[in-house]
Amino acid sequence: MPETLAAAARAAATLRHLTTPVELPRHLIEELLDRALGFELGEADLQRRDGRLLATLFYEPSTRTRFSFEAAMHRLGGQVLSAENAVKASSAAKGESLEDAIRVISGYVDAIVIRHPEIGAAARAAQAATVPVVNAGDGAGHHPTQALLDLYTIRKELGRLDRLRVGLVGDLRNGRTVRSLALLLSRFPQNELVLVSPPGLRMGDDILEALGETAVDQTGELDPVVCTLDVLYQTRIQAERFESAEAYERYRGVYVVTPDIMRCLPEHALLMHPLPRVGEIDPQVDSDPRAAYFRQTRNGLWARMAVLDWVLGS
Amino acid sequence: MPETLAAAARAAATLRHLTTPVELPRHLIEELLDRALGFELGEADLQRRDGRLLATLFYEPSTRTRFSFEAAMHRLGGQVLSAENAVKASSAAKGESLEDAIRVISGYVDAIVIRHPEIGAAARAAQAATVPVVNAGDGAGHHPTQALLDLYTIRKELGRLDRLRVGLVGDLRNGRTVRSLALLLSRFPQNELVLVSPPGLRMGDDILEALGETAVDQTGELDPVVCTLDVLYQTRIQAERFESAEAYERYRGVYVVTPDIMRCLPEHALLMHPLPRVGEIDPQVDSDPRAAYFRQTRNGLWARMAVLDWVLGS
Amino acid sequence: MPETLAAAARAAATLRHLTTPVELPRHLIEELLDRALGFELGEADLQRRDGRLLATLFYEPSTRTRFSFEAAMHRLGGQVLSAENAVKASSAAKGESLEDAIRVISGYVDAIVIRHPEIGAAARAAQAATVPVVNAGDGAGHHPTQALLDLYTIRKELGRLDRLRVGLVGDLRNGRTVRSLALLLSRFPQNELVLVSPPGLRMGDDILEALGETAVDQTGELDPVVCTLDVLYQTRIQAERFESAEAYERYRGVYVVTPDIMRCLPEHALLMHPLPRVGEIDPQVDSDPRAAYFRQTRNGLWARMAVLDWVLGS
Repeated sequence: MPETLAAAARAAATLRHLTTPVELPRHLIEELLDRALGFELGEADLQRRDGRLLATLFYEPSTRTRFSFEAAMHRLGGQVLSAENAVKASSAAKGESLEDAIRVISGYVDAIVIRHPEIGAAARAAQAATVPVVNAGDGAGHHPTQALLDLYTIRKELGRLDRLRVGLVGDLRNGRTVRSLALLLSRFPQNELVLVSPPGLRMGDDILEALGETAVDQTGELDPVVCTLDVLYQTRIQAERFESAEAYERYRGVYVVTPDIMRCLPEHALLMHPLPRVGEIDPQVDSDPRAAYFRQTRNGLWARMAVLDWVLGS
Repeated sequence: MPETLAAAARAAATLRHLTTPVELPRHLIEELLDRALGFELGEADLQRRDGRLLATLFYEPSTRTRFSFEAAMHRLGGQVLSAENAVKASSAAKGESLEDAIRVISGYVDAIVIRHPEIGAAARAAQAATVPVVNAGDGAGHHPTQALLDLYTIRKELGRLDRLRVGLVGDLRNGRTVRSLALLLSRFPQNELVLVSPPGLRMGDDILEALGETAVDQTGELDPVVCTLDVLYQTRIQAERFESAEAYERYRGVYVVTPDIMRCLPEHALLMHPLPRVGEIDPQVDSDPRAAYFRQTRNGLWARMAVLDWVLGS
Repeated sequence: MPETLAAAARAAATLRHLTTPVELPRHLIEELLDRALGFELGEADLQRRDGRLLATLFYEPSTRTRFSFEAAMHRLGGQVLSAENAVKASSAAKGESLEDAIRVISGYVDAIVIRHPEIGAAARAAQAATVPVVNAGDGAGHHPTQALLDLYTIRKELGRLDRLRVGLVGDLRNGRTVRSLALLLSRFPQNELVLVSPPGLRMGDDILEALGETAVDQTGELDPVVCTLDVLYQTRIQAERFESAEAYERYRGVYVVTPDIMRCLPEHALLMHPLPRVGEIDPQVDSDPRAAYFRQTRNGLWARMAVLDWVLGS
């Protein structure tokens, strides 16, 4: 509890938030991945955040992601206050601003994880908070902890994060996961991104402009590029971001990973997906050793332990 | 974390699930009831599952049953990740399969409790899971932990589980509680079941055929049989399983336990109900010492501690 | 677990509930505020309720208040079972009585916090419960823990609880917070209440009659009284208690605290608000040192720790 305005300002200035990939320079990415590995191998102390309290505020529901963060906090020895459906259950329904809600909740807990349907909501929350804030997805904005667990998976399975040819496939306009992942991959040298999407769902210019020297191919066809990839990163068409069911149906099923596609994918390559999937990967593919998506989701536990441990060290 | 497919297969083969009464032979029922008694008497170590994580996934809401499992896990020293409204809050709303959801959540926790509106959903979850799964009710299928706490209550209050004449009353077609209870009672010798229901709500043939040598009477009239019973097990007409309000209203109020009914019930007998009740038992009956339903629900804590402790020992 | 009816009756008679301000005589208020201060200063043992279980039952959603109680329970070393949306998720939807639900949940936990849309629901719950019950708001009835944290804030910032001139502003008919606060302030000598509301939203006679010798001014105009106050307690017009949107709109925005109003408020005075606010306080006022509402909400943690600690000592 900061006692004076000056102390409060000092404390706020040193808080560690994770709201966008901007906060993740290469050295910090590597530090977090190493910390995650320590947790997976049991080398780091699992109970080091004993007695600390996390609030998970989900203004957009997601049992999976919420559980991943909450399991991570419990494995760190902490406890959790959980809002499964923060929109309906909170004062937001009465017209309260997000900033007021965050200031109040900051008084009760040691860190806040927020998912929100609006781009930039997590950054706004971080501005208002007096404790660290972690973005668990802000609309079609970013999802930095997902990108971290993706890198963790790639490094663990392929042994490196540079000199990779990575195909990002599907709804690149609305997919916050691939938006964050593209930026994090651009922190490492000699990576090539192959952006595979229908014309209407191309990766946003804000991301393309921030990729720096990373090589980028854009295409509408998946088949011809599969054989050139180290990582085939498939995504779900984000139905909830379309204005009409018709607009969604136009894109659904454009790219499906089938056993045929897998025959083209190199032997050493990975098939990844942030999950949930709704038909974009044929379940027949699940038993292929290159199908990494269930291992990937499991890695979310270690990556999120690392992120929570880091912000709680503010 | 199994490292190879073979190890994963071995681990999966030895997992202890509880999805239907089929998994409960007599010796295991008795072992679980003894374990529950140990918890109630404070003889078993209450903190023996310290640090373990349980996920409660309720695709059909039930604060009562969820709390019963969660209290049991906390009393065992464990922690809980809770999905109060898994349908709306999860990727199920986006079209994800139950199997995918369970595989993902298996990566975060040590056991899963699931309630689901579809018959067989818990068994499907157990197939997909890499951790133990406990069925907290699957539509009009089964509710094995409720049946265990019912047996626990009967044994505690009447001193035995055989040579009992038990009346199961009400909606026997849709009541998963009585379906499971009938099967568990048939594991013990010389029990007699009196199945009291309107013609349209009779116990399903799948259960009747599995009862083996247990004597079964079927009737539509409650009054004449009350005086012959050791246990009068009243149930709620399952409004949510009917297609129309009219169909429900036809059956509602057919059987109501009143002080008059209680005058016919033998002095040593028990009146039980899985709760919630909606008019099937007159509250005037609550103060009758034979009215066991609030003691029964309390026993759920010990029975579920025993079940969770057993599956966590996989 | 009481074993006999007599023991149960004895235990019930000595349970400590907090459902209305009636249960809070002056000496107990002071004891609870001292206990809260001990927690804030770290003088009281934060882990003294280790292993105890609290159920939070919110039949009316409120993430903020729920989190405040749950954080308090965790800081005391306890654990929480949480029902974010008890109406939809519970047997209430199936027609079960509140009394039955409370009796059942009493069997699982050591204390119950309840919020409910009906006046008197918490008192009814306390009658049915076999564990302590704390009222977290019962419709337009009472909100005693909010009133306690308000007193805690006033005592901490102004140094006393008597000889105060306190303006309660806004929807005094439906605002349970100000109803409870008025009663608690009347326990201390020489306080003066200035009740500022539109004619249709005046403080209820039940409260006015219970204020005893406390001086009361009633007015419809805020501006003329501001300069006379030690505490300006602003509240939200309770939209959810009005029958129509038109009725609500008639009152919304009648009283807004602006920088102009603050110029009239004495230098030593406090501006308080139970939050959430929806336009009744201009955010420009937030940086004024007299704006105490975020400090006030933070004090809820200590006040609720004190209340939970007290009831758990039953």
